[in-house]
Amino acid sequence: MWKRITAKTEGVYIADTEQFVTKKMDKLRAEYGGFPGDLHFGLTKKAGAREPMYQRGTEIFNRRQISIVSMEECDDIAEAMGISHIFPEWLGANIAISGFSALTSLKEGNRIIFPSGASLLCEGENDPCIQPGEVIQSFYPDQPKLAAAFVRHAIGRRGIVCIVERPGDICTGDPVDIHSYEPKRVKKKIEKV
Amino acid sequence: MWKRITAKTEGVYIADTEQFVTKKMDKLRAEYGGFPGDLHFGLTKKAGAREPMYQRGTEIFNRRQISIVSMEECDDIAEAMGISHIFPEWLGANIAISGFSALTSLKEGNRIIFPSGASLLCEGENDPCIQPGEVIQSFYPDQPKLAAAFVRHAIGRRGIVCIVERPGDICTGDPVDIHSYEPKRVKKKIEKV
Repeated sequence: MWKRITAKTEGVYIADTEQFVTKKMDKLRAEYGGFPGDLHFGLTKKAGAREPMYQRGTEIFNRRQISIVSMEECDDIAEAMGISHIFPEWLGANIAISGFSALTSLKEGNRIIFPSGASLLCEGENDPCIQPGEVIQSFYPDQPKLAAAFVRHAIGRRGIVCIVERPGDICTGDPVDIHSYEPKRVKKKIEKV
Repeated sequence: MWKRITAKTEGVYIADTEQFVTKKMDKLRAEYGGFPGDLHFGLTKKAGAREPMYQRGTEIFNRRQISIVSMEECDDIAEAMGISHIFPEWLGANIAISGFSALTSLKEGNRIIFPSGASLLCEGENDPCIQPGEVIQSFYPDQPKLAAAFVRHAIGRRGIVCIVERPGDICTGDPVDIHSYEPKRVKKKIEKV
């Protein structure tokens, strides 16, 4: 029922200014709500474009506390866009992992667990928006239309968002266990004729 | 991208004793963490059998704050088990809805919104366990092996668990809007030969 996959934490990152772009750290402590001091930290957040069922600015629970990308998927997006590389920082990522290239297809309800015991609960795919595309564009001024190209090429590869299920430290270089769950399926009765 | 389905709140229920079985109320207020006073209320909970990646009793975030069943799926389980009916209370449900028979297949990340503005975030299927089966058995003493039969027949029909995304009142009789999201798919390039 539960399958375990091992990957590596390539970096932990924080956005501790008004800037969307994150910066790489050696270690961060995940608390309920995310990484304290990070732009996306909080048990609640204000509803925005990703939550069209609420009036913009409505206080809602924050299911986008921490975002994770995979190095392999970043490389795939860069290749598809015809640029040499995309850094996790540019995407505002809080964590980058390597060794699990199918990160974006990780389902809601799966867990990402670190050696300290810190654990993140997957809340699903992070649909690409224009903002990181504009950051990428700023680093490749000679290549036009990269912002829109990012949105197009990052679908299904832009990583996931998580909530903190168990607090603890997360360090650059940490091994990480991904616990993936496959629910039971209803067995259909075969009619006897 | 977002699809809206309308259904009806058949009842709101609370487990305000040590008992797993819930009781029907006219109105309950959903706060962050669930229904205050309910057995499953809390922003955190102790890890149990459903979270095998943690040592039992570890404090973790509570993603099982509120459970919802559909009246149609309760009837389907009862029919498959050869009994006349299953009440939502017996399953420890906090909310029962009618008019949306595919409730259990509602995906994580979908929203269930009530007229007060109260909103629940789907955290996925509630896999059946033996406990409600034993409750059902106690109401049908003449029919043997109902507890295990429940676990078998309730797979894919036992409803969902939710977290509170926005606090507010939920009333028996309320209409309810289900906001269901279909993510974009990656378009595969067709190779020209």
